[in-house]
Amino acid sequence: MKNLIKDINFNLYQVLNSEKLLETERYKEHSKEIFDAVIDTAKRIAEDLFAPHNTKADENEPQFDGDSVKLIPETKKAWDAFAEAGFLATAMDEEWDGSQLPELIARAVYLIFCAANVSTSVYPFLTIGVAELIHSFASQKQKELYLPALLDGRFSGTMALTEPEQGSALADISTSAQLQADGSYLLKGQKIFISAGEHELSDNIIHLVLAKIEGAPAGVKGISLFICPKYLVNDDGSLGERNDLAVTGLLHKMGYRNASSTLLSFGDNDNCKAYLVGQAHKGLSYMFLMMNGARIGVGTGAAAIGYAGYSYSLNYAHERKQGRLPSNRDPSSPQLKIIKHADVRRMLLAQKSYVEGSLAVCLYATSLLDIQKTGTQVEKDNALALLEFLTPVVKSWPSKYGPKANDLAIQILAGAGYMRDHPVEQYYRDNRLNAIHEGTRGIQAIDLLGRKLAFNKFEYYQAFKDALRQTIKKSENNQEWAKELERALALHEKTSMTLLAQMAKDIDLALANASEYLEFTGKIVIAWQWLKMANAAQQALAQKPRNEQKNFYLGKLQAARYHFDWELPQIYAQAELLSSMNSVCFDMKEEWF
Amino acid sequence: MKNLIKDINFNLYQVLNSEKLLETERYKEHSKEIFDAVIDTAKRIAEDLFAPHNTKADENEPQFDGDSVKLIPETKKAWDAFAEAGFLATAMDEEWDGSQLPELIARAVYLIFCAANVSTSVYPFLTIGVAELIHSFASQKQKELYLPALLDGRFSGTMALTEPEQGSALADISTSAQLQADGSYLLKGQKIFISAGEHELSDNIIHLVLAKIEGAPAGVKGISLFICPKYLVNDDGSLGERNDLAVTGLLHKMGYRNASSTLLSFGDNDNCKAYLVGQAHKGLSYMFLMMNGARIGVGTGAAAIGYAGYSYSLNYAHERKQGRLPSNRDPSSPQLKIIKHADVRRMLLAQKSYVEGSLAVCLYATSLLDIQKTGTQVEKDNALALLEFLTPVVKSWPSKYGPKANDLAIQILAGAGYMRDHPVEQYYRDNRLNAIHEGTRGIQAIDLLGRKLAFNKFEYYQAFKDALRQTIKKSENNQEWAKELERALALHEKTSMTLLAQMAKDIDLALANASEYLEFTGKIVIAWQWLKMANAAQQALAQKPRNEQKNFYLGKLQAARYHFDWELPQIYAQAELLSSMNSVCFDMKEEWF
Repeated sequence: MKNLIKDINFNLYQVLNSEKLLETERYKEHSKEIFDAVIDTAKRIAEDLFAPHNTKADENEPQFDGDSVKLIPETKKAWDAFAEAGFLATAMDEEWDGSQLPELIARAVYLIFCAANVSTSVYPFLTIGVAELIHSFASQKQKELYLPALLDGRFSGTMALTEPEQGSALADISTSAQLQADGSYLLKGQKIFISAGEHELSDNIIHLVLAKIEGAPAGVKGISLFICPKYLVNDDGSLGERNDLAVTGLLHKMGYRNASSTLLSFGDNDNCKAYLVGQAHKGLSYMFLMMNGARIGVGTGAAAIGYAGYSYSLNYAHERKQGRLPSNRDPSSPQLKIIKHADVRRMLLAQKSYVEGSLAVCLYATSLLDIQKTGTQVEKDNALALLEFLTPVVKSWPSKYGPKANDLAIQILAGAGYMRDHPVEQYYRDNRLNAIHEGTRGIQAIDLLGRKLAFNKFEYYQAFKDALRQTIKKSENNQEWAKELERALALHEKTSMTLLAQMAKDIDLALANASEYLEFTGKIVIAWQWLKMANAAQQALAQKPRNEQKNFYLGKLQAARYHFDWELPQIYAQAELLSSMNSVCFDMKEEWF
Repeated sequence: MKNLIKDINFNLYQVLNSEKLLETERYKEHSKEIFDAVIDTAKRIAEDLFAPHNTKADENEPQFDGDSVKLIPETKKAWDAFAEAGFLATAMDEEWDGSQLPELIARAVYLIFCAANVSTSVYPFLTIGVAELIHSFASQKQKELYLPALLDGRFSGTMALTEPEQGSALADISTSAQLQADGSYLLKGQKIFISAGEHELSDNIIHLVLAKIEGAPAGVKGISLFICPKYLVNDDGSLGERNDLAVTGLLHKMGYRNASSTLLSFGDNDNCKAYLVGQAHKGLSYMFLMMNGARIGVGTGAAAIGYAGYSYSLNYAHERKQGRLPSNRDPSSPQLKIIKHADVRRMLLAQKSYVEGSLAVCLYATSLLDIQKTGTQVEKDNALALLEFLTPVVKSWPSKYGPKANDLAIQILAGAGYMRDHPVEQYYRDNRLNAIHEGTRGIQAIDLLGRKLAFNKFEYYQAFKDALRQTIKKSENNQEWAKELERALALHEKTSMTLLAQMAKDIDLALANASEYLEFTGKIVIAWQWLKMANAAQQALAQKPRNEQKNFYLGKLQAARYHFDWELPQIYAQAELLSSMNSVCFDMKEEWF
């Protein structure tokens, strides 16, 4: 955890210059000391109340007794301490008694809890998301009714989007909403994979449900968003009767086990009350306005689990002794710490480059959320445009390379890593979820190439290119890498234009290799992030730090070098494949399999 | 299973021309009908008695009650049926009442059982390995005492190599063996990760133990091999007293759960009897003479599990409906089978290329074992040389790309794939072991670059290059791919020579990127295998097959195309990295992490 916090601080203060947020109207009451104290409190609670039951929760998954869902008791203690410390309202406006801390600090807190215990963290962080959505789009009265309880932990929340028959295709959901005389609605339908759908952590559970009002247009334009509480809430905030919704089963996952995943049935007795949020038929657009944040969240979770595995395998490599160098032929000489083997260092350095690259891009993206809250209109627009372009990468890259890091962590421990005595196999299982939820990799890929790239006459793409060029310009201490990145960006432009030209002709073919385009883009985005970190490291080294500090920056430079030497050069083969409109997958006939 | 058997037959009869084995002295009593019947029996038993408890065994792992290890009862039924059908002696000489079938048929049988249930398959196939080792190196008396019972299932076997403090570094084992007056030895020491180390499937368990005779030289040259039975065996074959060895605990794995993994303690009461196999101090060389076969086995297991996931996700993609093509903007049109989405076909085609490439290379390598049993001396020498070069790839490539296929299978099922209701998450967990056991990936890499490449004035490497050139020459129907492979081979030669030159200067640095060299070599080896398969497919297509048959061959060509277009081009960046003697990982200091 110590290294993680060092890395967080490096990003916050040396790469992202977050202290300048203190000069803004929104955050001016804070100070760096407050930020430090918040992070320190998060670390303490994560270490004391989240990390210790990570393995136990994996071995004792939630149990459904036909009525309620039981979690191991440590979960409740963790939830209570989290709420007590005010973390459910870290970034919330002061108006609602929130701490009104920067999104960056809230993200740092999230990283810390996910690294300690990702599945227990699902409960509070989903609740934060629900509160944010209600805060952004619900009526004043709805806010007054639900927000205070969601922010102090009496209520918790879920997002109920997916249905058994639709999966990723939200346009096809069939949960229905029928308007009642009192302005409320009655819901009827089934939802699946609903995390935290039932538990006994809080007095009430607020489900945010996507449903279609009877007579709504077909497809995504007919979807509305509803508040559907487990217990109805009286006007004075007290709990009323039990609403007509029920858990019909639990799903049993490979990992993330302490986060109950439920099948929910709404309106079995035709009496499931729900309340429209905002306007009818705008539900999906509300969800999507929060989606950038949610998707950064998935990337951050993947980065955090990747980081946890990296740290564990690093400690192991420092302690475990085995074998000798190839040049040493004396079998009676003492065995070496395995970190002395170059291949072990390769696996550690690859992990470092993956997880710290992931961490950096997630925090960078989060800093754009803060600009959206504090900047001038021009700054806000630019930050939004940049974030829109980056989000598919921020979600997907850590979700691929975090698990890849976890795979390497297992490999360093070898036989021991495959055993449940060490946590690395759990990290590997936990992290596998992240390429799936909040939009699979394939969906991110289509979002990037099919929507974001050319959006509004390349508004998003232009913001992306500008941001890279700005970094390139400021890289006088890392000129070689800056040139590499410039070359990569030129290739990216050329490849993108080729794909767009094809899109006008045959969109199905042009989007067929979107996943490879996402991977291609990701390698360039992460190279950019490493260049930013390398610049910050050079700047720090110019101050002649010593010992541990100096080593820290030299490590950053070496990890940057790893990305530039080992990862980035793969873009040339990728660009060739993409530019040639390779149609091998597209042409494959289903009957040929 | 149907597709797997079709693929096996394609390799056996169209790629490897195994029918010509029937012309050899060793296999002349057999016929293709017999081969078919054996494979059919394997399929039946695998489907009836192995596959059905694959999930149950995963959920109910072996239990240790302080004395014995209990498995779910289905395991015993599976073991008995396997033994009853004579599969423990599939490839064994007739002299020992074996079926004396080709190694290729034995490997096909192995594939089928591993695809059905890899962890239950560990018990019989480890026993087969033990029987082979005893058959090859033990005395006539030892063979008479142990072989018949190992071949009919009364006894089972284990390989006890690894010790808690040594892991991969076998040179450093410390289990001791003390010569007794009667010529037997007393063992003392601890072993870890011993698969099938205790269970109640058989009357006796024969452990093959590596230990050092007191006064032996240090390192690998002081290791001897011993037979150490759980129950001593009387001269008449009846069981004698319980030997002084005990399970001290079970290891709890991420996957492969039905294969008990044990901690074994030998000689706690100074009375653990064991019998030297062959000559003193030659133990490791005996093990290594069997190692090619064992490592092909690991690759084959990885291929089989990969294949199982591929098949499952293919069926799912044919059935599950979701979403529409990008070109279709009508939300009221019906949803499509997900195989209609190009990205899903990409994930299926990648899997196909990975698992069928793995299958092919494992069967090809196995065919070399048959040549070693049946060829002229020149053929035998050449087959051995080729196999020595290929083995690190045959072990490692499927162990990396099999899991990669399983990862894609999960991704196709998405949320459902992460749930334990479907078997793909178990395949992903099971398959993760294969990059670890029988020599980790790092060890294979050093074996390839550090030992095999230049061995005996490039004898092995020459055999490898000759084999590729022979295929290239015979590829008149796939000239473009043949040229690609030729170009790749030239690059491989050049890169290898650069690395060797470096090795003479600084072996530690030259071997630092051995893992990347292994990956680089693997892509070329698999391209070669795909070219061989593509040639066979073209030959078959020239006969104008129809419908399903034609589709099968067209699918092979498309999967070959996938490898040549999507995988092989990555070798150019790899070669550049390797040739430049990139020292990023080597130079990384432990204090920089």
